[in-house]
Amino acid sequence: MTFTPTDYLPYDFANRRHIGPSPAEMAQMLEIVGAESLEALIDDTLPAKIRQAEPLDFGKPLSESELLHRMKVTAGKNRVLTSLIGQGYHGTVTPPAIQRNILENPAWYTAYTPYQPEISQGRLEALLNFQTMVSDLTGLEIANASLLDEATACAEAMTMAQRVAKSKARGFFVDENCHPQNIAVMKTRAAPLGIEIIVGDPDALDPEAVFGAIFQYPGTHGRLRDVSPQMERLHAHAAIGIVAADPLALTLLKEPGAMGADIAVGSTQRFGVPVGYGGPHAAYMATRQAYTRAMPGRIVGVSIDSHGNRAYRLALQTREQHIRREKATSNVCTAQALLAVMAGFYAVFHGPQGLKAIAQRIHRKTVRLAEGLREAGFEVEPESFFDTITVEVGALQSAVLKSAVDEGINLRRVGTTRIGIALDERTRPATIEAVWRAFGIERADTNFTPRYRLPEALLRQSDYLTHPVFHMNRAETEMMRYMRRLSDRDLALDRAMIPLGSCTMKLNSAAEMMPVTWDEFALMHPYAPRDQAAGYMEMIEDLSAKLCDVTGYDAISMQPNSGAQGEYAGLLTIAGYHRAQGEGHRDICLIPMSAHGTNPATAQMVGWQVVPVKTAANGDIDLDDFRAKSEQHADRLAACMITYPSTHGVFEETVTEVCRITHEHGGQVYIDGANMNAMVGLSRPGDLGGDVSHLNLHKTFCIPHGGGGPGMGPIGVRRHLVHHLPGDPVSGEGAVSAAPFGSPSLLPISWAYCLMMGGAGLTQATRVAILNANYIARRLEGAFEVLYKGPSGRVAHECIIDTRPFAKSADVTVDDIAKRLVDCGFHAPTMSWPVAGTLMIEPTESETKAELDRFCDAMLAIRAEIAEIEAGRADRTNNPLKNAPHTMEDLVRDWDRPYSRETGCFPPGAFRVDKYWPPVNRVDNAWGDRNLSCTCPPMESYLDASQ
Amino acid sequence: MTFTPTDYLPYDFANRRHIGPSPAEMAQMLEIVGAESLEALIDDTLPAKIRQAEPLDFGKPLSESELLHRMKVTAGKNRVLTSLIGQGYHGTVTPPAIQRNILENPAWYTAYTPYQPEISQGRLEALLNFQTMVSDLTGLEIANASLLDEATACAEAMTMAQRVAKSKARGFFVDENCHPQNIAVMKTRAAPLGIEIIVGDPDALDPEAVFGAIFQYPGTHGRLRDVSPQMERLHAHAAIGIVAADPLALTLLKEPGAMGADIAVGSTQRFGVPVGYGGPHAAYMATRQAYTRAMPGRIVGVSIDSHGNRAYRLALQTREQHIRREKATSNVCTAQALLAVMAGFYAVFHGPQGLKAIAQRIHRKTVRLAEGLREAGFEVEPESFFDTITVEVGALQSAVLKSAVDEGINLRRVGTTRIGIALDERTRPATIEAVWRAFGIERADTNFTPRYRLPEALLRQSDYLTHPVFHMNRAETEMMRYMRRLSDRDLALDRAMIPLGSCTMKLNSAAEMMPVTWDEFALMHPYAPRDQAAGYMEMIEDLSAKLCDVTGYDAISMQPNSGAQGEYAGLLTIAGYHRAQGEGHRDICLIPMSAHGTNPATAQMVGWQVVPVKTAANGDIDLDDFRAKSEQHADRLAACMITYPSTHGVFEETVTEVCRITHEHGGQVYIDGANMNAMVGLSRPGDLGGDVSHLNLHKTFCIPHGGGGPGMGPIGVRRHLVHHLPGDPVSGEGAVSAAPFGSPSLLPISWAYCLMMGGAGLTQATRVAILNANYIARRLEGAFEVLYKGPSGRVAHECIIDTRPFAKSADVTVDDIAKRLVDCGFHAPTMSWPVAGTLMIEPTESETKAELDRFCDAMLAIRAEIAEIEAGRADRTNNPLKNAPHTMEDLVRDWDRPYSRETGCFPPGAFRVDKYWPPVNRVDNAWGDRNLSCTCPPMESYLDASQ
Repeated sequence: MTFTPTDYLPYDFANRRHIGPSPAEMAQMLEIVGAESLEALIDDTLPAKIRQAEPLDFGKPLSESELLHRMKVTAGKNRVLTSLIGQGYHGTVTPPAIQRNILENPAWYTAYTPYQPEISQGRLEALLNFQTMVSDLTGLEIANASLLDEATACAEAMTMAQRVAKSKARGFFVDENCHPQNIAVMKTRAAPLGIEIIVGDPDALDPEAVFGAIFQYPGTHGRLRDVSPQMERLHAHAAIGIVAADPLALTLLKEPGAMGADIAVGSTQRFGVPVGYGGPHAAYMATRQAYTRAMPGRIVGVSIDSHGNRAYRLALQTREQHIRREKATSNVCTAQALLAVMAGFYAVFHGPQGLKAIAQRIHRKTVRLAEGLREAGFEVEPESFFDTITVEVGALQSAVLKSAVDEGINLRRVGTTRIGIALDERTRPATIEAVWRAFGIERADTNFTPRYRLPEALLRQSDYLTHPVFHMNRAETEMMRYMRRLSDRDLALDRAMIPLGSCTMKLNSAAEMMPVTWDEFALMHPYAPRDQAAGYMEMIEDLSAKLCDVTGYDAISMQPNSGAQGEYAGLLTIAGYHRAQGEGHRDICLIPMSAHGTNPATAQMVGWQVVPVKTAANGDIDLDDFRAKSEQHADRLAACMITYPSTHGVFEETVTEVCRITHEHGGQVYIDGANMNAMVGLSRPGDLGGDVSHLNLHKTFCIPHGGGGPGMGPIGVRRHLVHHLPGDPVSGEGAVSAAPFGSPSLLPISWAYCLMMGGAGLTQATRVAILNANYIARRLEGAFEVLYKGPSGRVAHECIIDTRPFAKSADVTVDDIAKRLVDCGFHAPTMSWPVAGTLMIEPTESETKAELDRFCDAMLAIRAEIAEIEAGRADRTNNPLKNAPHTMEDLVRDWDRPYSRETGCFPPGAFRVDKYWPPVNRVDNAWGDRNLSCTCPPMESYLDASQ
Repeated sequence: MTFTPTDYLPYDFANRRHIGPSPAEMAQMLEIVGAESLEALIDDTLPAKIRQAEPLDFGKPLSESELLHRMKVTAGKNRVLTSLIGQGYHGTVTPPAIQRNILENPAWYTAYTPYQPEISQGRLEALLNFQTMVSDLTGLEIANASLLDEATACAEAMTMAQRVAKSKARGFFVDENCHPQNIAVMKTRAAPLGIEIIVGDPDALDPEAVFGAIFQYPGTHGRLRDVSPQMERLHAHAAIGIVAADPLALTLLKEPGAMGADIAVGSTQRFGVPVGYGGPHAAYMATRQAYTRAMPGRIVGVSIDSHGNRAYRLALQTREQHIRREKATSNVCTAQALLAVMAGFYAVFHGPQGLKAIAQRIHRKTVRLAEGLREAGFEVEPESFFDTITVEVGALQSAVLKSAVDEGINLRRVGTTRIGIALDERTRPATIEAVWRAFGIERADTNFTPRYRLPEALLRQSDYLTHPVFHMNRAETEMMRYMRRLSDRDLALDRAMIPLGSCTMKLNSAAEMMPVTWDEFALMHPYAPRDQAAGYMEMIEDLSAKLCDVTGYDAISMQPNSGAQGEYAGLLTIAGYHRAQGEGHRDICLIPMSAHGTNPATAQMVGWQVVPVKTAANGDIDLDDFRAKSEQHADRLAACMITYPSTHGVFEETVTEVCRITHEHGGQVYIDGANMNAMVGLSRPGDLGGDVSHLNLHKTFCIPHGGGGPGMGPIGVRRHLVHHLPGDPVSGEGAVSAAPFGSPSLLPISWAYCLMMGGAGLTQATRVAILNANYIARRLEGAFEVLYKGPSGRVAHECIIDTRPFAKSADVTVDDIAKRLVDCGFHAPTMSWPVAGTLMIEPTESETKAELDRFCDAMLAIRAEIAEIEAGRADRTNNPLKNAPHTMEDLVRDWDRPYSRETGCFPPGAFRVDKYWPPVNRVDNAWGDRNLSCTCPPMESYLDASQ
């Protein structure tokens, strides 16, 4: 038989789809890198002593269609009821146009954080819409571009209040009407900082005892209260007043600003973002102008570009933790950009009229529901409410809850004799009738016009969403085009490599993304009875087991919903362990100077003192200094925090020694998981001596960056720490997030990745990530100095190149190079981190040789342009680098530059026909910070841009 | 209570989302149009005597979320089994990257047919990939850009054979191994043309009796036969040989070209396009170079632009039916562009290696299945096969079929004692085991390596898919970026209005699109037992009832899968009726000269003689001529075909008289439904006197154009015609398409539209479509002459402007204006139809006032540019119109034009930052036709474009 079976595996996701270079390309690359084989390269790169003993084995990897089948089966085990539990999570209608064009569109979800504003104008505008919405609804002057969830936003507001309050009291008052998970997370956060949480009735507030207070509005059981008197009393004692407010309620009710609040926080989940068993959603924070610089999180602001045209960018970045390091009082790093974009578009989609109508409909339904219950003789509280009521049922609580479940509805258990009900945008007359039946009431929900139950004094008096963007024509055609226009302004992974050091911008595959928007995952309430979430449990258990295999740890907590949250949870776990050992006094944390700023910021948050450890010239930890500091602080040593491979991209052989020393002196080892993409399948932090690590699922495990969030930072711990992991946010202790599993609707992505890659595929991905980085390093060598190689001359999964010499030789800064890369069609690598004046390049395994070459060609051409300046053949201030990025605006204007349009706009790397054009010229950051404006600019300034 | 309930309806899809102008905008527009109210405008426009008596009433319209819920319930009534029925429809794995980035991406699905090549380079390249794939796999020199389905492709091949064959025999031989639906549709098509179909064993072929012959490969029951001897015999008698081939089988088997076939046809469904209960999928046709001009359907070809750069465009357009009219022998109009794009990407995604591996896997599985059956004592045929076998079961046929259904599997009933099984890409070991169990065999599908069952002599010897595009790196990252780059080159509805006369480019909403890709609709086999398709049946029945309400007809056939197919089915229905009345001799069809070319082409296809009727200067039918021709041909009058409102966009009052006259002389009235968007809810063709109409669901009922298909052209008929509608393609007579309901997986779109709009919403949409057209007409009046208004000075849903005067006054052609509109960011209106030198503008109801104004501003600016030429202030050959469209290439080159870059590139209408740049300059159509090339150009020519 002449028929020759091919050995090509068409459904091999790992090697054919996820990993960029083909086998033939890899062979070419290995030759250039000077390695005999991929395995030989890895042997060069990873010291033998840190290699893991057994290969990862997850069984047979699944194809994409097998994966989707497996997902369907698992998803089918979730029983999605109509949850009227409320408690900060509400049914919402995601407009299909937003789902399709934002949430399911790689142009939005694969984008990176908008640190390079010239290529991020679209999402910056979308986030500015979000900020404007928040600012308007809360009645406060300035809002940030989102926080992780409402509970952490409450905690952030608490610590911010401590920073800005003139009062030096140690107490912080928490309204007993706050959602339990908010109280839980604030308690967790308060303890290490010595803040005394006082939970109580707002009427009993003692303003002298506190530096601040927080009130839930509406209260968790529906109560509406005007806290203006409380605000007055707080202010009289130089304390800060915070309101945690439902933004939908604010379309009808007096806004926090009008009550005198200094800070407002809350969740925008019900603005079109599916509940998703707890997340991700965008929390918000708004405050008075005066407190802007004390506000955590990213803030989008308006500035100008080099032509003086309007341009957006992140404002006031010096506030961020990676710059403030030990001075930081928050480690907030990631936001929830994608979800904030969705919520902002939801407001654009509905406009103020629409939002108000939605709120009124919900309120009317709640009134009807309450009337029906009252008429049947039930005692319903409170007297006035927005969307939430409680019903007294005495001993029948469990029976009614069960009866509701039989009707397909989850209600909330309140105390031992009451039941809570919160209605939402999805509530239908049939829902109301089903609730009545659960209470034994048989009646039809006739659409009578009820009396409203909103207190007259609390009706909102002020306008909101008055900006024209919220008054666009709301035809879907217009909305779709607006979303398309914004996305086209941005450069995301769907157009080019984003070679960001430590950010691991790898493929987010379509198959991985699909299950996220399935109803079975998207519509589940985080506090639904656990037995309804069997699909989620199965996934979480299996993914946890796999992550344990990957890390060498014994247990995983999915609760932290960002990498920084993971660090925080990890250190809390260590602190809890020390306390349990009677060593609660241990409070020294050793951190190498090269560490990311979140490390010291996090250590601060758990109340520890940071002791920096020197790093050697090659970026390695100075082992002598480490030993000395450990000994010096042996009595108080709580932990060390190290990153592996190091932030300089090197596998230090000394890592096991560092761990040993730490343990010897009674400390625990935190290994930062930011660089796990260089380790998976090859080396395990648990084997190296780590006690805790977090995993950035949004880096190593394929959750897309979403333009600056969502992230997901579960932690792995060794056995002795298991009992100190974060507890349940409602029933447990030590919660760090509002939902038990953080942002679980993202987990299908990482699980799918593991299932389709298999152990061998994950390991191969790591190898190829290292190959790709070494290939770039080798191609750029000679033109640029590659810093921080390992002993064998190899880099790990990223490489750092030095651009400092060009400052002197050619007046060229790292910024100039970054902007010139935009002309070449690239997002810049990480700039000036971990070393100022350098570029850290991480290609990931998903980029092909062709794309790596395009990037290297661009970099080499830029180096040649620098050489022209060095040689005096090009002007030192008027050259392609200084004028970068070049725009269509430049092209159409008179061209008075000493180089051609062609040279300016089409450097090597740039596509010709498919060229990406940045919508603005270089953005003036300083101008924006001097002229701070963080809400949508007036319409006149749109005129030029719109036509 | 000061709380004021808002009367804003946030979930009103019709008025808030689908219809473009807001109420405030409409008020402004009415003022400009000079109408007191929308109703007054409609009264002006539609003669009272043609208005329908009762308003449309479909009950309460649904919101988007109600719609999706309703759809889920309906979809859930479909029971999707694993169908191994084969018969031309196979399970396939749609790569998620293709589903998300093509099928669910408005940049692809909202695009129009690429008649304007400068703004269609992306989909033209994708279609060229498809053509190259077909040409390679079939081994024939030239392929078209798809046909409707395999059965109609067979029929087209048959009539094409008749055109090109030197043999004058009347017979056409059809291999008895052809799929039954192919035979059925060829029989339907043959009868009116006097072609005698001879179905038989290929060994019994009498080449003298036939002008051509068609063979199925593999045969419908799996048989593999080398038809080279048949080809030789046919050629010896100057007849044409056709092979209907499964393209996946061709990756392993000797290709039709190598057998000497002149034409190959088939379906590319199994290249990643879901079965969808029958469609849509792309059929293909390929032939020898010599027969290119005789081939129906669109052909993409390679040409150059005005800079000499490579550019794609539709080749040989003079072949098309709208130009050939009565000479046309095919009415093929729409293709299946979106599905052809998907199939082409599937080939790019897998490459030749991957396709071959997939085919081999399927074959190996089939061998294993067959072995298992044989070992259990079953008689399995044929001896050698690719993926299809039949099993003799004697009297147990029904029992085995039922047993299979119990296992979740549909098998094929063959004759009375056999069972057919066709495996596919989705077949899993568990599937094979389940089939065995259905036959009473309990065994495991161990993965043994079987002997192959492909005949040695039929193994493919030649290479295929050798072009570099099929050897791209197949990492998803690269694929995603390639899809993105192509889509970015095109201008679709997601970026701008496409004001195409009679093409009704309205909103295709995300909610309408979502159910299309649900498994319950996407995965159902067209010949699955009807009881498994209860959801489809419910939808089809309800949608049919609604379409009857809309049209005033009594029954609907969903079978025609394009508008032209609908015309054809309609005329066949009339012919069947005449025959049943003993009036089979009636064969004269009156058609106004202004009719679309498909009308006369279709009349030809049913064997009728076309008698043209004069049209008056105002575009109206010349009633005197109509009366005279009717009388003259009274004995033979079969039908008249009219379009209402007329192709000139006018509601003729005389329509009822035309119908009356036709009926009086024994004829039936066909009212073309192309312009139904001007009638829905206001006037019903059935009330006017029509006997049949087709509905372009892809125009009036929101199915997106997909870049040139899919379409859907169901017909409505009056009661007396019901029994003459197309029959079932497998069991009935007179089938026009391969599947009983045409392309039913599109129907959720139109059904969703009806459900969300409700009767009042649909009616309002019609009113606003008329308002929008009148608004444009009024705004352009003065600058341009608006032709063909109704007696009250109103136009219907489109308006025609005259550009002929500018040819003389300024040497400006309608083409120049169309290309200049690209600079303004618009797709041109319909050019030179129905009157040469005019533009027909149809804005639809979905465009907002802002977008209409942007378009009018652009048109007025163009008129001003013409005036400059007329006044001698601008050069007659070197001006913005002649040089349009302007590209980035122009901007970057030296600029030696008598106007500025600014003037050239940013005329009124063009966005500044968000400007759409065409990827090529004006395309030279003639050059391409002189240098015909219709497969991917060699790689060298990509080098420039790729960097």
